[in-house]
Formats: sequence, structure tokens, C-alpha cells
Amino acid sequence: MNLILLSPTDFIKPKTRVRLDDRRYLHIRDIHRAKAGDELSVGLIGGRIGTGTITTLTGEGLEMDISLDLQPPAPLPVTLILALPRPNILKRTLQSASAMGAKKIFFIHSNQVEKSFWLSPALQPEKIREQLILGLEQGKDTVLPDVQLRKKFKPFVEDELPDLIRGTRALVAHPEAAQECPRALNEPITLMIGPEGGFIPYEIKKLTELGFTPVHLGNRILRVDTAVPALLARLF
Amino acid sequence: MNLILLSPTDFIKPKTRVRLDDRRYLHIRDIHRAKAGDELSVGLIGGRIGTGTITTLTGEGLEMDISLDLQPPAPLPVTLILALPRPNILKRTLQSASAMGAKKIFFIHSNQVEKSFWLSPALQPEKIREQLILGLEQGKDTVLPDVQLRKKFKPFVEDELPDLIRGTRALVAHPEAAQECPRALNEPITLMIGPEGGFIPYEIKKLTELGFTPVHLGNRILRVDTAVPALLARLF
Repeated sequence: MNLILLSPTDFIKPKTRVRLDDRRYLHIRDIHRAKAGDELSVGLIGGRIGTGTITTLTGEGLEMDISLDLQPPAPLPVTLILALPRPNILKRTLQSASAMGAKKIFFIHSNQVEKSFWLSPALQPEKIREQLILGLEQGKDTVLPDVQLRKKFKPFVEDELPDLIRGTRALVAHPEAAQECPRALNEPITLMIGPEGGFIPYEIKKLTELGFTPVHLGNRILRVDTAVPALLARLF
Repeated sequence: MNLILLSPTDFIKPKTRVRLDDRRYLHIRDIHRAKAGDELSVGLIGGRIGTGTITTLTGEGLEMDISLDLQPPAPLPVTLILALPRPNILKRTLQSASAMGAKKIFFIHSNQVEKSFWLSPALQPEKIREQLILGLEQGKDTVLPDVQLRKKFKPFVEDELPDLIRGTRALVAHPEAAQECPRALNEPITLMIGPEGGFIPYEIKKLTELGFTPVHLGNRILRVDTAVPALLARLF
């Protein structure tokens, strides 16, 4: 927890003092081993970041004086569209994408996605939010990504995707692509990553017809929780 | 499992036929849903990769005819030196580093590493090997990385590190570095990544004295399991 993320309900004096007694308090007490007078990085969810100075820390909770004067780090200009992975991989991917600054994330169905993945409790909005918040705390950011679920490939691709990719460079990670993934692009990107079995030829055809370029990262196949940090670090 | 990794003891006819009845068999049967006649990517641990054609698949095991004619993918010319992370993060990091082609990995102690992490069963050689193999199966590689553990920072840095970095570009990931992490280096690299609390100033001083350049990936702090794929994808 590199940044303590605050919500409006934490404040006991408007804008200047918070009281925490939940997992954040336990983390500050037991992991940071902080005491009264210590300063910590804090941020208001959806707002600015700054400093919290602990005024009291007891066995039941802590209070901090808060000063928020900095903008959170710039978001990555990327829309991530990922074939839904298995639940434990989903959680890690949400965390790392959130930590790296992606703000628009779609999880979609595709031919090689196991239908049972859609039944996972990890897809409940509050469970998704938990992982996103862990990522923000790691990456020292305050702005929650917007996560959307799309359970049908064809309607998503035909009805939504043309608008989504407008004004962006549209790339689909595909191990059999002819072209290597480009580097250090200074422009908005839509990045699609397939499921463990890959996108099937029909899906790649639909995407290339829309304007997607298939790109590869070498002859190794990476799982989505490895591919997302690898691709984002290479593209931006 | 994008590649079925074989060991010499799997062979029932020298070089040409294997019998599997363990987790690989279950994976081929239940996840690939393969049947007799199907072809799968296979590789001999430490050796070549190629094709396995299933000759029989029963409720108890399977046999495959094996043809191994290709070299495994090229290794990354990197030595990874990572402050020991907590056990669940260690496992993921071993998997992704192995999948991406790192072949020399050190886990070291540093000031901000919790001493208890060194007691984890995840550090037992057979547990480390399990994660490395999962990574090779993912990345379609056969060559196991060499993983070394060093429980003392100073002797490692003073007695071993000068030889290790010779002939390489030595970089240490450090969020407070002045220099951005370079891209697409076509040379051998030694890459160090600190613990969750970062390397302390004394440690950074020791490393820079040896010739390490501190580099950053922007103002977000990434956990080591995200930082490893991000840095490797950027550097190579």
C-alpha cells in the first residue's frame, strides 16, 4: 500500500481530518509500523493526492491530518479489451492494469473463453472494485478504472467496437501475427488480448476487417496477467 | 499448457514414444480435450521442441509419438536480481520470468525484505522448479532457469556482483531514479529490482558505486510481479 486511498466517508473534519479503523488502519499499524507524527502518502478516491500526518494511533484506529495538493499520475491513453480469463488471473490482471494506469477495461467473451468463467463471483462489481483499489494503492493513483463486461463477442465487435476504436491505433496481440508489437507510441491505443487458447481465425478476421493490426511479442506465448504489463510497458 | 514438457523418464521407446499419466495427461485429456490422432506441441526438458501425436488415450494415461526437431526459443540475455518478495508474489514472478525467457535469476536479501519470507516453503528447490516449469509450459520453452538464493546483501554485492555484471549493462529499477528506463537494448543486461519498500539509500549507493544505473518506469510504483514483465518487455 504505497498510497492510502481515502473516501469522503472517512473524513471527520471536512477536507482536513480522517479517521480509519479498517484494513487500511491495520496495514498502517502492522506493515508500515507507523506512529503518531509519521507522514504517509494519501489520496482521495477520484481526486488529488498528498500527505497524511498521523495525529493519533490507538489499538482501535487512527486519525490523520490531510493535505491534498497534487494531481494523480496521468492515465495511460489505452482501452484494454481482454478475453475473460479464469478468475485468479482476472484478479491479478485487474490489479496490474489498475496499477499501471489503464482507465478503460473491457472483458469480453470469445470462442476459447470457458463459459463457466462468466459465473465467477470475482466478476461481481464490488469484487472487481476491490482489485482495482489494490492496484491504485500500489500505483499511487486515485482514479478508478471503468470496467465493462460483454458476454457476446459478435454484438460487441459489430455494434460497439467501431466507435471505441475511433481515433485510436487498434492492436490485437496475436502470437501468429506477422508484425512485431511497436514501441513507445505517443497516441491513444486500443489493445485487445485473446484468451488462453487465442482468438480463433474468424475472430482475428473480424478484428482486422475493423482496422485492428495483429502484433506479436516474439515466439513465446504469455498469459494475460503477464502480457498486460509487458504490452503496456512496451507501447507507452 | 502451450507446450507439454517431457523428461527422459517419460520415454517408453528411446526418443520416439512417451507415456504420460500425471497432471500432463489430465490436462491434455480435460483441458485440451484431445483424442488419439491429435497433435500437440511438446519439448524435452533442456532440449528440443517439436510435435507429439497421440497414439492411445485411455482412462489411465496416454501415449504419444514424439518428433523433436526445433530449437527452443532464444533466451533473454538478462540476469535478474530480485529482492525476495512474499511467497505468493515469488511464485508468480518465477512463472512469468521463466515464461519470458530469463535464465539466470537471483533472489537476494535487502533491508526492506521481511526476514520471515526466507522461511517460506515456496523457496524449496522442488517448489521453485514447479513454478519454473509452469512458466516454460506457458512460454513454449524447455530450458530451466537457474535460480539462486542469497540471504546476505553485503557479501553478495561485494563478492559476487562485480563478476556477475561484467560485460553487461547494469540497471537497478528505482522509482526515484532520474533516468527513464531505456528501451530495446541489444546487449546483455543485469537488472535488479528492490523489495516492496524499495532499496534503501545505502543499498542504492553500493549499487551505483559498482556501476549500476538507477532507472524508473514513470511515477507509478509496480509490484515485482508486474515490474518484471514490464521491464523485460521494455528492455528487449
